[in-house]
Amino acid sequence: MAGKLYGVGLGPGDPDLMTLRAHRLVSQARVVAYPALAGSDSFARAIAAAAIPAGAREIVMDVPMTVERGPAQAAYDSGAAKIAQALEAGEDVVCLCEGDPFFYGSFMYLHARLADRFEVEVVPGVTSIAACAARAGLPLAARNERLTVLPGPLPAAELRTRIEGAESVAIMKVGRHLTKIRGVIAELGLTDKAIYVERASLPDEVVCPLVDAPEKAPYFSMILLVKGGDPWL
Amino acid sequence: MAGKLYGVGLGPGDPDLMTLRAHRLVSQARVVAYPALAGSDSFARAIAAAAIPAGAREIVMDVPMTVERGPAQAAYDSGAAKIAQALEAGEDVVCLCEGDPFFYGSFMYLHARLADRFEVEVVPGVTSIAACAARAGLPLAARNERLTVLPGPLPAAELRTRIEGAESVAIMKVGRHLTKIRGVIAELGLTDKAIYVERASLPDEVVCPLVDAPEKAPYFSMILLVKGGDPWL
Ligand SMILES: C[S@@+](CC[C@H](N)C(=O)[O-])C[C@H]1O[C@@H](n2cnc3c(N)ncnc32)[C@H](O)[C@@H]1O
Ligand SMILES: C[S@@+](CC[C@H](N)C(=O)[O-])C[C@H]1O[C@@H](n2cnc3c(N)ncnc32)[C@H](O)[C@@H]1O
Repeated sequence: MAGKLYGVGLGPGDPDLMTLRAHRLVSQARVVAYPALAGSDSFARAIAAAAIPAGAREIVMDVPMTVERGPAQAAYDSGAAKIAQALEAGEDVVCLCEGDPFFYGSFMYLHARLADRFEVEVVPGVTSIAACAARAGLPLAARNERLTVLPGPLPAAELRTRIEGAESVAIMKVGRHLTKIRGVIAELGLTDKAIYVERASLPDEVVCPLVDAPEKAPYFSMILLVKGGDPWL
Repeated sequence: MAGKLYGVGLGPGDPDLMTLRAHRLVSQARVVAYPALAGSDSFARAIAAAAIPAGAREIVMDVPMTVERGPAQAAYDSGAAKIAQALEAGEDVVCLCEGDPFFYGSFMYLHARLADRFEVEVVPGVTSIAACAARAGLPLAARNERLTVLPGPLPAAELRTRIEGAESVAIMKVGRHLTKIRGVIAELGLTDKAIYVERASLPDEVVCPLVDAPEKAPYFSMILLVKGGDPWL
């Protein structure tokens, strides 16, 4: 009998924000799989590190972060093939995913390659948005408010239109798009409503008004924009 | 010294989806507080039930679900006053919140009333969106896709415009708005992309294509719409 594939959300970084289920699955894993982006250490693995049993086999996918999608696709193809081999041999495989697996997560690429052939269980996790809002003390959306999630790499004009059409906005993948995003938010006169959060829930976390954000943002950063102020009072 | 207020996200329903931190805080609580909507049992309390210590004091807020906001505001005012009393007496108070506290959660009403006077820690939780997507096997958003969260009570025209402007949509608070929402999605020709999820992660969960959804939806239901199909392949 084939093994089962688990896509396990580990939350935003603090291991204490893993779910009980995620923690148990990792603790009992015999095979774990995870991506490592652009030659750096795997963030997902770091979150789960203390729970991974000694002796568990590790399938690492080295995913290059290029603009063309071919090289990353090849990395997921070969990772999926290794995972399939383990599953076919009857082993369960626990895929480690930062945040939530289905929310801009790399597990989606494995799911697309394996879900039609193997049993899959996705264990949802705390998203970076929930973590950033919690750390910023910033309620995101109440009652009939609309919340929009936008990736920072979108063109400025597109960001502008989408920000205009929502009460609350979370902008992901800020990184090298910080200057462009800052510009759009300033043009809309919303700078004083924007909060910058970097590495939420981790020891070196940064939370500050967007005006005070550093010149350079790392990949693990986000901007939250809540237009309403305190509309739930 | 005053006590600390914890707003603790408990996830979408399955107690196993509580975070390690939420579980520990609840297990050690001496005072817990939670809302009970419209005279029914508190869903938040039910999620945490097995972890609440015998002998913990419970502050229950009976929140009526009326269209006018006055009665609910009065319930939160009086709940906040009781919580403030406990905090002033030096006791920590653990507020139980379904899902994530700052994502359409009732904790926002307590936060607005107490955060300026007491130390507050918000513990993020797994949202119902992440849980519904996981249970539906439906990746929500990848790469540069936009994700929009819309409350079902919005007028049909507003829902229509917002659905048109996003690749992925989650519609919350479906309940008695199901017929209206179904209509909008059908008009847009998107019915075959829509999934209905009720009570995700609970034993009586329902997951099905929107066409097969029951005539009446309960409050704890959601519609997920992912236009892209499998764009991450
Ligand atoms: C590829 S997405 C993964 C999102 C993840 N699956 C989730 O559920 O949050 C990476 C982006 O998530 C955001 N992110 C993830 N962890 C974060 C953290 N601890 N603090 C701030 N932003 C974070 C950043 O915007 C980053 O560019
Ligand atoms: C007041 S909001 C609370 C949301 C919660 N704070 C969260 O983070 O998901 C209530 C709405 O959340 C959604 N919801 C909450 N739990 C759910 C579940 N287990 N399954 C499906 N929908 C759920 C429904 O749309 C419901 O109307």
